[in-house]
Parts: sequence; structure tokens; C-alpha cells
Amino acid sequence: MSPQPDSASPTPLFDRIQYPQDLKQLGVDQLPQLAQELRHVILDTVQVTGGHLGSSMGVVELTIALHYVFDFANDRLIFDVGHQSYPHKLLTGRKDRFHTLRQKHGLCGFTNRFESDFDVYTFGHAGTATSTALGLTVGDRLLGRQRHVVAVVGDAAMGCGVAFEALNHGGSLEKDRLLVILNDNRWSIAKTVGALARYLNRVRTGSLYNQAKKTVHQLIQSIPLIGKDLDERLEDIADTMRNIVHPGHVFEALGFTYFGPIDGHDLKDSVETLQRLKDRGGVALLHVRTEKGRGVPGSEDAYDRAHAAKPRPKAEPVPMEPCVVLPAKAPAKGKSWTQWFAEGVEELAEQDARVVAITAAMPDGTGLMKFRERFPERFVDAGIAEQHAVAFASGLATAGMRPVAAIYSTFLQRGYDQVFQEVALQKVPVVFALDRAGLVGEDGPTHNGAFDIAYLRTLPGMVLMAPKDGPELKQMLRFGLGLGAPSAVRYPRGDAPGAAELPGCEGESLPLELGRMEVLRRGKDGAILAYGHMVQVALEAAALLDKRGVHVEVVNARFAKPLDAEGILGLADRHDRVLTLEDHAVMGGFGSAVLECIAQHGPVRAQFQVAGIPDLFPEHASRKQLLEELGLDARGVAARFLSGTLSGRPL
Amino acid sequence: MSPQPDSASPTPLFDRIQYPQDLKQLGVDQLPQLAQELRHVILDTVQVTGGHLGSSMGVVELTIALHYVFDFANDRLIFDVGHQSYPHKLLTGRKDRFHTLRQKHGLCGFTNRFESDFDVYTFGHAGTATSTALGLTVGDRLLGRQRHVVAVVGDAAMGCGVAFEALNHGGSLEKDRLLVILNDNRWSIAKTVGALARYLNRVRTGSLYNQAKKTVHQLIQSIPLIGKDLDERLEDIADTMRNIVHPGHVFEALGFTYFGPIDGHDLKDSVETLQRLKDRGGVALLHVRTEKGRGVPGSEDAYDRAHAAKPRPKAEPVPMEPCVVLPAKAPAKGKSWTQWFAEGVEELAEQDARVVAITAAMPDGTGLMKFRERFPERFVDAGIAEQHAVAFASGLATAGMRPVAAIYSTFLQRGYDQVFQEVALQKVPVVFALDRAGLVGEDGPTHNGAFDIAYLRTLPGMVLMAPKDGPELKQMLRFGLGLGAPSAVRYPRGDAPGAAELPGCEGESLPLELGRMEVLRRGKDGAILAYGHMVQVALEAAALLDKRGVHVEVVNARFAKPLDAEGILGLADRHDRVLTLEDHAVMGGFGSAVLECIAQHGPVRAQFQVAGIPDLFPEHASRKQLLEELGLDARGVAARFLSGTLSGRPL
Repeated sequence: MSPQPDSASPTPLFDRIQYPQDLKQLGVDQLPQLAQELRHVILDTVQVTGGHLGSSMGVVELTIALHYVFDFANDRLIFDVGHQSYPHKLLTGRKDRFHTLRQKHGLCGFTNRFESDFDVYTFGHAGTATSTALGLTVGDRLLGRQRHVVAVVGDAAMGCGVAFEALNHGGSLEKDRLLVILNDNRWSIAKTVGALARYLNRVRTGSLYNQAKKTVHQLIQSIPLIGKDLDERLEDIADTMRNIVHPGHVFEALGFTYFGPIDGHDLKDSVETLQRLKDRGGVALLHVRTEKGRGVPGSEDAYDRAHAAKPRPKAEPVPMEPCVVLPAKAPAKGKSWTQWFAEGVEELAEQDARVVAITAAMPDGTGLMKFRERFPERFVDAGIAEQHAVAFASGLATAGMRPVAAIYSTFLQRGYDQVFQEVALQKVPVVFALDRAGLVGEDGPTHNGAFDIAYLRTLPGMVLMAPKDGPELKQMLRFGLGLGAPSAVRYPRGDAPGAAELPGCEGESLPLELGRMEVLRRGKDGAILAYGHMVQVALEAAALLDKRGVHVEVVNARFAKPLDAEGILGLADRHDRVLTLEDHAVMGGFGSAVLECIAQHGPVRAQFQVAGIPDLFPEHASRKQLLEELGLDARGVAARFLSGTLSGRPL
Repeated sequence: MSPQPDSASPTPLFDRIQYPQDLKQLGVDQLPQLAQELRHVILDTVQVTGGHLGSSMGVVELTIALHYVFDFANDRLIFDVGHQSYPHKLLTGRKDRFHTLRQKHGLCGFTNRFESDFDVYTFGHAGTATSTALGLTVGDRLLGRQRHVVAVVGDAAMGCGVAFEALNHGGSLEKDRLLVILNDNRWSIAKTVGALARYLNRVRTGSLYNQAKKTVHQLIQSIPLIGKDLDERLEDIADTMRNIVHPGHVFEALGFTYFGPIDGHDLKDSVETLQRLKDRGGVALLHVRTEKGRGVPGSEDAYDRAHAAKPRPKAEPVPMEPCVVLPAKAPAKGKSWTQWFAEGVEELAEQDARVVAITAAMPDGTGLMKFRERFPERFVDAGIAEQHAVAFASGLATAGMRPVAAIYSTFLQRGYDQVFQEVALQKVPVVFALDRAGLVGEDGPTHNGAFDIAYLRTLPGMVLMAPKDGPELKQMLRFGLGLGAPSAVRYPRGDAPGAAELPGCEGESLPLELGRMEVLRRGKDGAILAYGHMVQVALEAAALLDKRGVHVEVVNARFAKPLDAEGILGLADRHDRVLTLEDHAVMGGFGSAVLECIAQHGPVRAQFQVAGIPDLFPEHASRKQLLEELGLDARGVAARFLSGTLSGRPL
């Protein structure tokens, strides 16, 4: 496990606190010091473990105020996304385990309902806190239970469609109590995009109200003779205006009584406001302004940087890294799949003026920062709005452009119906670049890209590809853009092998051909048919098996759809056993597709077995640890071949 | 084919029109007569063919005005959902085929890009018109193309999360031209729910503006001495107020310049307004008030009734049926799966106060109208907002309630990520009742529920069930509610057999047991393992095979997850061949799950073959026609058994 947090920062108040009831022993005037202490603990710890630093540092005071006012042993607190929950974890019985953050068997990097009763939800995707809180509060009413439900939602997450749907529903309720806190930190993961962001900015600066006030002022002043006398009454009129031209009009239009904005770092004001709102009841929205990365040295200047930190030697400057959350172990040193993708899509954009890159609030995570600089006109950040990102891409394709939608595998689930209706059904050429496909590691089950093959391959006409190495990723992007039909390329987190780096490959890589596999090495004792980056594991496993005198054929599947039926039947004919290998759920994945293909073509010689992620949500751990645990590393795959588990007949 | 529309209604103007350019030959003052003629044609035709009557009748004038002002041979017109496109079809070269509406090889009941160049999209799910229009318009700009893009969106569809995401994005654009028309017909499929609906209602009645005006008036009047003199200036102040307290403030907050509301049945005003907006450019929203079902006798009084019509003998009163779209052939006379569901969920709600029924704007289609009456406190219509509906259900379950979310199979795709994160990952007991699972028929590919097994079974912990008959549907609902874990029950459109109605069943039905199949009849020559309502087809096929001297075992699978591994291996052991049968895509469906199970357990005696919907989007036709065409009726299944296609070895 990682070292304990730095004890150089004294934490005299925090030392007295294990649970929220301990917090309530402090006076309001002591809370700022506690906030200071919490910041030190978080900063010291995350420098070692890595994690979502900026979001958590921004809500230290807000979290303290919430626990000071409410009793979340009974009341319910839901953090949207959950990555801002480090101060919450520290105040709810988990301080002694905080140094295990994001490590195997340690604390989760998000809220996790299986970790603590204070965490209502296991979250990771944005925008659903208001919906679930609304369900909770209606359920409480129906069950006759008296308690408060509070949802904390970032300003970027407010742009999610589901958040709007929930506000739209919540605002129409009359009997329920729900407090939604808009945690407005001006920039979320990336700079918040969209009109709502501009609107919030106007609210923030008060320009809407001030403009209205000024207009009325000028009007009245301009009235001859009486204008001056009216000055006394101006404030009344201004008050009237204020009630009408409310800063939170857009929320009030949706039925939520709007309060704020308040300074989320002012503990006294926060505590008083929350206390009033607690007493008030009803459906309300409190607008709280916070600074993301508050207290992180240098973060005030950083843009798009303080979202998450990778671990660093403590002597170095404080982490101000891109929002890619790196593992706690040694930082990556090779070239990542994401970088290969970025290079590929930039080259294509150079050569083809129709290429547009789309991200859903992940310009950095998907490697598109440089693309944004180089081709600003052909870069679109749709915000945390995958549904719109996909439908928008469809519109671009319909116009004749060639959109590449770079969306993490797990987040594309949010746009699934648009992949179905707006893309697959229309047969328009959108290329989906599914980053973080497969196990992601420390971010845990919400971020694993474990289902994309299953949910995409069932849609007619989709072309699904996965590359064995970086150069092949670039070829597949080009291939997808040339198809004139919907396609998706999946690749994982982490480093990609270059062309010459795969061990045991024989001969030159073959050019891509729709629905054709590629045999990488021959062997007489069976075959491993691997999809995407698992080709590397297959080759490593084959090398281990060689040492045991077992020689297997290794095939790079390249396509999950359409499948290479001829190639698969050839394998089935040459061998007694074929193992399919993928970094995806076994249920409905690549191997499942292969089994369908075999069943369609009648009896074959080989017995097929499918290796992939079993039917569970793997806990957070490093990617390497997870692959080992699930038997998806080279050793595990080789062992599967040597044991009798494949077909009941030992080799 | 159905009879031609009634020629009793003379259509002298319409007779001169094939394409929009013909329309432009008419004077504006002639357009109301044309509208009248179109209404007659639609009414006469839909009485024969069935279809979405109300929505199309409401936009007759709007459609005429749009085609009169714009040139949609070049400009682009996108109807959200597309069910309101009948007048559009009549004006764009399809009048001669209009009588084939919703019939096999006839016109599609929605817009369809493969049917006409005037239809930009093949739609059916709500809310994505603005997104795709935005993509189109940005693509046009990037390609240097000059044309107008217009999206027509209903008020209920504006409550979709994706519509909000699109407005939020569109409002932040500065260089693009996009006209969004809010077709505000006060009640969409069901009465529009949510705060946005209330807001639009305030806009409609002008109460917001009037209230503000009144307040200022009173204020100024109350000022001693000078109040009266101010009266002259009151209108100025009121104008100022009007600019600020704009009726479309909620849209303006999102960056769209708001125009309207205008009367969508006033052709002169509509034409003039559209012309001005066409000349203006930029990103704008035009609020148009229309009456759904306008011109349908009796529809003014109907609530929730004019959405769609089933065909009727012409002498009967005009169709005012629920929104369930019935087929053009003889109306159903038995008890539908939906009714069995409704009975089941009502019984459960009687017995368990924790049961809540949730719909996403389909209270009638899902059979919940009576539930709504009987248990108003425990009924929630979330609007066209499946994401929120699912997350909200999760909140209810977390509070301790037992939500049943009744959502059409195809529409649950919209809430897929919430099924993943808010339900499956949390392991909370939400029961999904997936109506319209399988082929739906006339509504076509957007409405087929062909993918739910694939996208749900890949999620860990889901329990997936499908009943063979009505009573089993009720048992499965009860079983799901007792599970304490997420589950889904799928059932199709149409009539369900009762307990005693399945031919060839031997013995009593066995009680449900998690992951256990049910053998319905024995046979020595192979087995059919059917999922859900396809059990009936399997039994009918077995009866046909009996006549040929081929005796097959028929098994009711009951569960797609968890599978009955023991039962399946037993089948594989008893037979040379097993055919799995489902009303779902072959890719990733029930049969695929069976193949995974077999692969996991090593070599077996039987050869398995999977029968289901092949990898294509079936065109609209009656459900019966589709099943026949795809070989999924009793005759087709029996033929598959008799032919050599199963295993290469003829019986």
C-alpha cells in the first residue's frame, strides 16, 4: 500500500473527527480551520495515490457545511459523478483508509454504496444525481419517511439531458422536498460548453439583473420633472425587477425556487443558507459558486488542468495534469493508444477537409487538444451530452462531412439510442472512436468499457474493429472513414505497442480488408483468436506456451463485425481447440459472435472457448491487477490452455 | 392493398399538386382551401389504413406554410419523431401512394430517408430533430453550402434530454442558421408532463408578461402625486419589461432568439412569419400553437385520444382511440399482452403498497391508464424522458419502493446508461416491463424491440425473463418484484394466449424458479428451445412436424439470464439438434447466450442453431407478414427443421 499522508501538516481539529456527529461539536468559526486541514490531507494523499484532485478541493467547505447542517446518517446526500467526494469520505468514517484511495481493496475514487452507508450511489457518469434524488424523495414520501435529500451537481453536469429531464419533472412536483445544489465552478472537466454555461456566466456576473435595473433607472430618470423624485422609489422598482428578472430564471421556469448565488467557500454563509433551506422544505435549487482546485498551488491559472492528478514524487510541483487519471504505479512512458488516435485523426483531417472531430467534454482525455488547436473549425465539444454528440455527428454526416466521434466506451452508453436511430438506421458514415474500451483500472466499474461490442454488434450494419497496435489503430480510422457506413474502433487505456513491438509476429502486417482476420503466427496445438489489444496478450501467452512445448496459432481478429466466417471456419478445421480472447464482457461480446458464426455453419472440428470479462462488475484496481485477477494476462491465458478447462480433454 | 381514399371530398386544388413547386403556384389566400382538402384526404385514408392521425391533422397548415416559403428540394426539413409527416408526404410526390400508408411495400408511417429525398431522416423516437438539424447546418457551413435547415419539434419532445442538450449547444453557436419550430399542441401523446409544460402554458396564456406589467403598473400608480402623469410612459416601461420578461425567456436563456407564439392554423400569419425568419437567418425558435387532431370530428373534447387511429369501418364515428396504433388488418379481439401486464401490475399494487408504476409518456400504450386512476399516488409519468424514468425508478427502489418501469423495448435504449449505472451497478430492485419486445409491424424499424436481450444481458446481475402466455407474464412480474435485484420481462405487441390456449402442452405449468426452463412436450427427433412468446410458434411448428412424423421436444426457456445450464446441457445430451427460437436479433440475443453456455461446458452431442431476426432492419409490414418473411412463423420454423439447413444433415 502507499505511504500514509504527510504528517507535516498538523490536523488538530480533523484529528477529533471520525463521523459527522463529531463535526457538529465544533463551532461555526472553527470550520474554516477544519477546511484548511482537510485540504492538506487531500493534497498530500492524492499526490501519492493520484485521483480527482480539483473537484474535491473545490467542495471542501460545501461538504463541511452540508454535514454540519444535515444528518446524513438519516438524510441522504448524493454527489453527481461522485469524483468530488474525497472530503465527504474523510468526514464519514473513512479517514483511516483514505491513503488506500483508488487502490485494490482500498477506497473507491467515487462514491460507492457498497463502501459506506453515507454513499447513496456508486457513481461515475454525470448528470443523474437529481433524478435519483427525486426518486428517493418521492419514495420517502410514499413510505411516510421524514428526511432530507440533497443532490450536489456540477455546472457542466447540469448540461446533461438527463439532468434537464429531472429538473423538468422535479419542478412540477408540489408535495416533495428536494434540495439541488448547483456547484458552479466555472469549468468542469473541460471548459463548460453551451448556452447554459453562458447563461450561468451572466448570472454569475449579475449582468442580467444589472442591465434590467439600469434600463428602468434610465427610463425613469428620463421622465421630465418627476424623474428625480422617483429616485426614492427606484429601489422598489428594482426589487420588483429582481423578482421577475431573477438570476435563476431558467431554473425557476422549470419550477425550482432559486437561491443564491452564494460563495461556496464562505462557511458561515453556507451553513446559514443551508440551515434556512433545510427548514424551508419544498423543491429548491441553491446556486453555489466554488473554485475548482481551490488550494492547489497554481491551479488558479490552470485551465482544464486540475480535474485529476496523476501521482508524483512529492518534491515536484503540485500535480496540474490533464484530466486523464493515471494509475498510482509508475507513470506510463510509451505512446498511448489515445496518442496514436490523436495522430491518426489529425493526419486524416489534414488530408480530408470533411473530417470533423467530436468529443463529449473530454477534449484532453480523448487526445483532441491538439486537434482543437489545429482545426478549431472542425472540432466540436458537445459537453457532457453524448446523446446530442452522436445525433449531431449524424447531422454532420448527413450533410456530407466525415465525423469522428471520440467517446469513451462506457460513456457511449449514454448515446446508445442515437447510435441506433440517428446513425445505424440511417446508414450514415460516423466513425466512433471508443477510447477506454476494456478494463480501465483505478476508476472502477463505472468507467470500464466492458459492453460496447455487445450493445453495438446487435445493431444492423455496424462495422466493429479493434487494432492490435498503434499503427493499426491509424489504419482502422482511415478504413472507417472510407467505408461510407457507420463504424466503431475500440482501444483501451494505456500504452499501445508500435508496429515492430509485438513479440512473435511472423511476417508483414496485411492490409486491412473488411471482415478479414490476420494470422500472426502458426501453431499446431490450437489457436488463440484475439480481438484488439488482447492480441499482444495472446502473443505473449503463445511465447509462454512455446516454452512448454505447446505451439499455438495466434490470430488478430481485427473485426468483430462483420466476422471473417471463412477464416474462423478455417481455424475450426485446423485445430481441436480455439480460444477467443477479448477485453470485454463474455456475455454478448466478440467470442459470442464467433460462436454464432460457428453455429450458423454447422458442426466443426474445434471446440471453442471464450475468454473475457466474466459476468460481474470488477472492483477498482490497477488495470494490470485486474487482468491478472481475471486470468486475462499472458500467464492466465497460457494456463487456461494448459489446464483441462478448455474442453475437458487435456492437451 | 387498401381502397383508395374516399373520392366524395372534392380536391380541386390538391389535384394540381404533386411537388412543392406546384404549391408555390397558388396564392396565399388559396392555401386555407388546400389545407381543408388535405385534411379530407388524410382523414379518409387513415380511417382505412390506421396511423398517427392527430399529430398529422394538427400540422396541415404549418406544413403547407413551410413548403410555401422554403424550398425543401434544397433546404432541409426535419420532423421530430416523423409521425406528423402525412401532409408533408402528400405535398412531396407521394400522393398517389398515400393509400399504401403503413402497409407492406407501401409508404412508411414516419419520415423515411430511403423513401424520399424530402425526408432527411428515418425517425420514430422523439427529441433528436434539433441535434441532427444542428449537425446538418454546421456541416453545410463547413462545406460552404447555402441552405436553410428547419426542425419541427413537438412540445412534449422538447422535454427530452437530448432536445435540451441540442438547444444548449445550438444557442452557443454564432455563425449558423437554424430554425427550430416548437409545435406546441398542448398535449402530445399523453398530456405533456413536467415543469416545461407548465412554463409553456404560462407563455401561452401570457400570464407571466401580464403579471409583470400589472406589478409595474400598480407600483407606479401608487407613487403619490406623480403616478398618474407616469401613465403615458407606462407603455415604454411595459415594453422594457416585455423585452426582459420575454415569453420565451427559457429558450432565450439557452441562446435562441424566440419568436411567437403564432397561430399555426393561420396560414397568412404563418407564411409571413416564416418568410421573415427565412430572411433573417441565425439561430431562432418559433413558437407555433396548433391543435392536435384539428379537423377530426370530436377531437376537441378528446384527451389523450387522437394520437393515433386504428382503422375502422367508414360508417362508424371517427377514430378516437388510444395511442396504440393498431394494424390495418382486422382489429385484435383477444386479450393483449399489455392487458395481462396491466392486470398483473394492478394486482401487485393492491397487495404491496411499495409498488409504483412508471411510464415515459406512454400511459395508454403500456396499459397503465387504469393503474393511474386506481393508484394515482403510485403512478408516475416521466414524460418522453426514459433516462430520467430509469434513474428515478432507481431512486424509488433505493428508498425501499418496488418500481415497475413499463417502457417499450426500443425506447429503453434511450435509458440504457441509466439501466447500467443507476440500476444494474447498484443492484437495486427495479422491474422493467418491456412492452413491444420483438417485431411491432406497421410502425417499422424504429419501433421494433429487437435488441433488448443483447444490450441488457451483457450487464452483470440482470435477470431477464419472457413469458409464454398471459398468466406467465403475471407470474414473472410477481417473481421480479420478489427478487430484490434488477430484472426485465419482455413481451410483444398483440394478443397473448391464456393458460389453456397453447396447443400441444403436456401437463401443468411448473412454478417459476430462477434460471429454470420448462419442458412443454417431449419428442425424440430434436428440440426447439423457445424464448417468451415464441413458445407458441414452437408448439405450432411441433404440431406441423408431428404430421410429417417428426416429433420434437418443445421447451419454454423462461429465462435468458441466468440460463438454465443444466437444462440446456440435458437438451444437448438428449438430441442431435436443438433450435433456439426468439423474436429478437440473432446477434447477441437469447440463442447467442445458449451458445455461450454450451461453449463453457465443453463438447456436447447436439448441434445448435439460432433462429431469430437476421442482421437487418425489417421494413414496416404487419407483424404476421414480417414473421412469415423472416421464417419465424410456425411454417417457417418447421421448414427449418425439415430442411438440411440446421446441421447439414437432413432428418
